[in-house]
Amino acid sequence: MKIAIDAMGGDHAPKEIVLGAMDAVREIPNLHITLVGHEDEIKQFLTNAERIEIIHADEVITGDDEPVRAVRKKKNSSLVKMAVEVKENRADACISAGNTGALMSAGLFVVGRIPGIDRPALSPTLPTLDGKGFLMLDVGANVEAKPSHLLQYAIMGSVYAEKVRSINNPKVGLLNVGTEDGKGNDLTKKAFDLMKKAPINFIGNVEARDLLEGVADVVVTDGFSGNVALKTIEGTASALFSMIKETFMSSFKTKIAAGMLKGDLKGLKNKLDYSEYGGAALFGLAAPVIKAHGSSNRRAIYSAIKQTCNMVENHVTETIKDTVEAMQANEGDNE
Amino acid sequence: MKIAIDAMGGDHAPKEIVLGAMDAVREIPNLHITLVGHEDEIKQFLTNAERIEIIHADEVITGDDEPVRAVRKKKNSSLVKMAVEVKENRADACISAGNTGALMSAGLFVVGRIPGIDRPALSPTLPTLDGKGFLMLDVGANVEAKPSHLLQYAIMGSVYAEKVRSINNPKVGLLNVGTEDGKGNDLTKKAFDLMKKAPINFIGNVEARDLLEGVADVVVTDGFSGNVALKTIEGTASALFSMIKETFMSSFKTKIAAGMLKGDLKGLKNKLDYSEYGGAALFGLAAPVIKAHGSSNRRAIYSAIKQTCNMVENHVTETIKDTVEAMQANEGDNE
Repeated sequence: MKIAIDAMGGDHAPKEIVLGAMDAVREIPNLHITLVGHEDEIKQFLTNAERIEIIHADEVITGDDEPVRAVRKKKNSSLVKMAVEVKENRADACISAGNTGALMSAGLFVVGRIPGIDRPALSPTLPTLDGKGFLMLDVGANVEAKPSHLLQYAIMGSVYAEKVRSINNPKVGLLNVGTEDGKGNDLTKKAFDLMKKAPINFIGNVEARDLLEGVADVVVTDGFSGNVALKTIEGTASALFSMIKETFMSSFKTKIAAGMLKGDLKGLKNKLDYSEYGGAALFGLAAPVIKAHGSSNRRAIYSAIKQTCNMVENHVTETIKDTVEAMQANEGDNE
Repeated sequence: MKIAIDAMGGDHAPKEIVLGAMDAVREIPNLHITLVGHEDEIKQFLTNAERIEIIHADEVITGDDEPVRAVRKKKNSSLVKMAVEVKENRADACISAGNTGALMSAGLFVVGRIPGIDRPALSPTLPTLDGKGFLMLDVGANVEAKPSHLLQYAIMGSVYAEKVRSINNPKVGLLNVGTEDGKGNDLTKKAFDLMKKAPINFIGNVEARDLLEGVADVVVTDGFSGNVALKTIEGTASALFSMIKETFMSSFKTKIAAGMLKGDLKGLKNKLDYSEYGGAALFGLAAPVIKAHGSSNRRAIYSAIKQTCNMVENHVTETIKDTVEAMQANEGDNE
């Protein structure tokens, strides 16, 4: 198995990327990694090149670059050259902690889609109270979704939850404004009907207030609403931690108490940190493409690599492809 | 000034509604209140009927009732009879802590819209870190919004923030998937262009992660995304408080520390409780219609009444009407 990694993407590149890659080859047998990026910079940190190859790239797509344009213009960037490795079958999957939009563009235009999937979906695993986490898709790859797209997201999410997260018969919910059948806008009403007939464990509509309670293993929504939900979770958690910090610093007594709780609250913060759950997969592409968190450290990169290996070993892409094909053949029969 | 109140709506009706109403007439000069509901039940708690009148209603719309149907069928319900008081000009405004959907239906079909406003919008004031709060609309009155609806929300929200919340030149933001101009789906792109030309202080796109930081005084969005954002804030805060509680109960040491912080953390929880900011206004109707939180106690009802009085005294409805008319006349001139 070979995974191509954008060594220049993310806040702590290339150092943490290289360190994470070395950890991964040490832990995972038969894993080969191709680090794509500035050779001299990578070599500074690469103390053990066993099963790690470098492909030199002298350009970098930054967070400020306009995604589609950057992918088109910066052919020598680490991100584009990484995607080319997958396209030309020299790598089974790829990972970047860089510009999310550019990775989506490279995924779509370089790696390409699975036949039968109209739009890729970006899908992070988000935290739940019980620590199991849930998959939400799409969180912004495609802001103009149709009912058939949501159906495809449901199938892709269900396959991933079952194959990679080892959840038996995963519960798939549709994000909506109420839990009752028949709720929602035109998009969710139509998607509901499609999902009801799909070969998944569809549990119906779910509400945003129940997401972190673990109401479903897979939550399906359009990229606009999903992006709003994701960023609202982030923003609310961050605001609450700010407020807690302020409360703790407000008096001598609270400072003492805060000191006593320090370790425990750090555990709480980690529990909510979704980079702990690995990267966000871009589903629907011809090979696994993983977006690691921009702030990924060595450990997060290692987790993302392990997750990507799981996707490759468990044939997630092939299963999605087969499921969609079977469903479409079935639809044809029913006509 | 006369305000009609649904005495039977909410988890603590009629007791807390009646107590809150008595508090309000004591504090607010010239305020007359009409309590609509079961006369005998109301009288049990009405120890002072000065400037408080009762209109008997023997039906109640419950949380389980299907909104539109309930408003049509239950003509003798406290909620519908309350709305009729406004429609027939015997009250200047109305308040219910009952079924939100039914209140929206009664608002739309009984009270009626302001000419020039296509869709009413439900707008709570949500908490921010600095305690000022921000107005978000729509959070679910209308799940299928057009760009012109978002423009109308922007104007209504801006008028309310200025007139009732006394914010000078309130900052109006458009909820979107990124802050840059040109981001978003077809709806937000078109709404952006309309809002840029409107007589408001439009600050552009805002992201969900910055809402509680107070990035804008008024945040405009379609009812679906707004509902998702609102419920995600609720759910995330609630999940975090559960986790904090669990952390606090995990050991002897943490229990001691928690005891020391008890009062301070309660203050924090109150800061996030948006019922503290009054009820959610239904903008765009011919008179102020206010949805008080379902769990409203006496104090929350008093706050909602005070807020409603502010809306009446500051002519919010008339200002919205005039602003929309002027804008439409202006558009006519430009054609």
